[in-house]
Amino acid sequence: MRFRIRPVETTFYDLFSESASHLVAGSDLLAGILADGVDREALADQMREAEHQADETTHRIVRLVNSTFVTPFDREDIYSLASALDDVMDFMEEAVDSIVLYDVSEFPPHFADQLDVLQRASRLTADSMPRLRTMKNLDEYWIEINRLENEGDRNHRRILAHLFGGSYKAMQVLKMKDIVESVEQAIDALETVANIVEQIAVKES
Amino acid sequence: MRFRIRPVETTFYDLFSESASHLVAGSDLLAGILADGVDREALADQMREAEHQADETTHRIVRLVNSTFVTPFDREDIYSLASALDDVMDFMEEAVDSIVLYDVSEFPPHFADQLDVLQRASRLTADSMPRLRTMKNLDEYWIEINRLENEGDRNHRRILAHLFGGSYKAMQVLKMKDIVESVEQAIDALETVANIVEQIAVKES
Amino acid sequence: MRFRIRPVETTFYDLFSESASHLVAGSDLLAGILADGVDREALADQMREAEHQADETTHRIVRLVNSTFVTPFDREDIYSLASALDDVMDFMEEAVDSIVLYDVSEFPPHFADQLDVLQRASRLTADSMPRLRTMKNLDEYWIEINRLENEGDRNHRRILAHLFGGSYKAMQVLKMKDIVESVEQAIDALETVANIVEQIAVKES
Repeated sequence: MRFRIRPVETTFYDLFSESASHLVAGSDLLAGILADGVDREALADQMREAEHQADETTHRIVRLVNSTFVTPFDREDIYSLASALDDVMDFMEEAVDSIVLYDVSEFPPHFADQLDVLQRASRLTADSMPRLRTMKNLDEYWIEINRLENEGDRNHRRILAHLFGGSYKAMQVLKMKDIVESVEQAIDALETVANIVEQIAVKES
Repeated sequence: MRFRIRPVETTFYDLFSESASHLVAGSDLLAGILADGVDREALADQMREAEHQADETTHRIVRLVNSTFVTPFDREDIYSLASALDDVMDFMEEAVDSIVLYDVSEFPPHFADQLDVLQRASRLTADSMPRLRTMKNLDEYWIEINRLENEGDRNHRRILAHLFGGSYKAMQVLKMKDIVESVEQAIDALETVANIVEQIAVKES
Repeated sequence: MRFRIRPVETTFYDLFSESASHLVAGSDLLAGILADGVDREALADQMREAEHQADETTHRIVRLVNSTFVTPFDREDIYSLASALDDVMDFMEEAVDSIVLYDVSEFPPHFADQLDVLQRASRLTADSMPRLRTMKNLDEYWIEINRLENEGDRNHRRILAHLFGGSYKAMQVLKMKDIVESVEQAIDALETVANIVEQIAVKES
């Protein structure tokens, strides 16, 4: 007689890592907009393509949830984590799109710092996803994401203070505010990803 | 000897359908604001009344959850779905209210298209709610809502590009941006409704 | 033979009450900004300190969830309630910070009313948290928070109508809009707290 067991489907871990790696690509593309002489239209196309690939990964996760008997953690949590990772990409894409759409080419001080925070938080998230497998050593990830989110919050307020400081016209402020808010929302969404990972770890422990 | 069973309370299905039918009424009222010679104050009153009726339906669902022994799916999911449907109505009512409050009477190109997307997504949602009963044939609903949300996203960006294109004053942009964002949030909220339905279907399958 | 039981950890109730009491302090600080001759920088420092203390309470709740065997209600619900209370404080702090950052010293009519709504909703929340212990007599809390949220919504719309009424420049509108939206988000977040309490009560009943 032979036993067949239904193993836990481990492809999820690979897909979450893949999803986070799209964010690294996306944050690098967004930061690339600051480079001199960059072809903005081409960059916006690349960003749309990156966002499309991230969508594909998200859909693969959702389809796998639907067809898998034993998931490594709660179905709803897999769903939440996939959605949260997807949200980050949407905000990044929105930022690039607004920059091109509004034809903004001068950015306030600290905007480059803010994109740097986003890049570092994206890399940290991608580096931490493989640790979902063991649920070990995730504390430093949460602590560091929280620190980066605080840094991003300080940058964001400095940028707003500058925008409202009197050297910009209302129309310019309106445009820039939209852009810097998309970047801040992307950073916040990376903190949401970390919070969901924390909640999963709490449940599984 | 007699057996008494506690049947699953099916009134929930009717109430979700009722909730979604309020959205059809709401999206039609909102689109009505574009008609020539419309009495805006009267329309805003009708919208407030529609929103009030939607609230009533939401409260009936919540009360029924509290008093029901066997619910057709998880209590929390019923709660989430009811709240999500209610959110759509709130955004629609906010859009009408802002139009009247800010006294806006000229709208950018593609705004009519955007209201059309909202009407179609509302109708699709209302048509799909009865299918919660069997949890069958819901895939086309998700796929089509996603398509409509993408169409809405493209419209939204076109509208913003136009608003920021140089032919409006900052104050006009500020007003219009509030209005078009409420419409976009209503469309997004309809996608959230579809996502919650999908999550419920995944759990129940 | 001796029995050892693992009692339900009741410290959670005290921590939720502590968390809500930070909100009372925060809303009083925010309302203090309207007083004549107030030292705004000093008040912003006090607000940051209050927000920091609220963070500390939130982290203690999260750590306690992680180390507790029998929680008084679902771990995820404890987590959601702690986050929702924390969100309220963040919006209050954001409002004070924006006022100081944008150097705004004149406020539209009804702004004082709106801060009054926030103070009353914060006190009501703090008064209701101890009732989580018995889950009794919470109905009047939900009803009254909903009433206050509606009152806040009406104030918010009156403030916006005034801001867009023609007596302000676009730049002033942009600044004030940010501030009044933070206050409205704080009031909305108090309604979210009440909704989470309601959901917990539904589950536990």
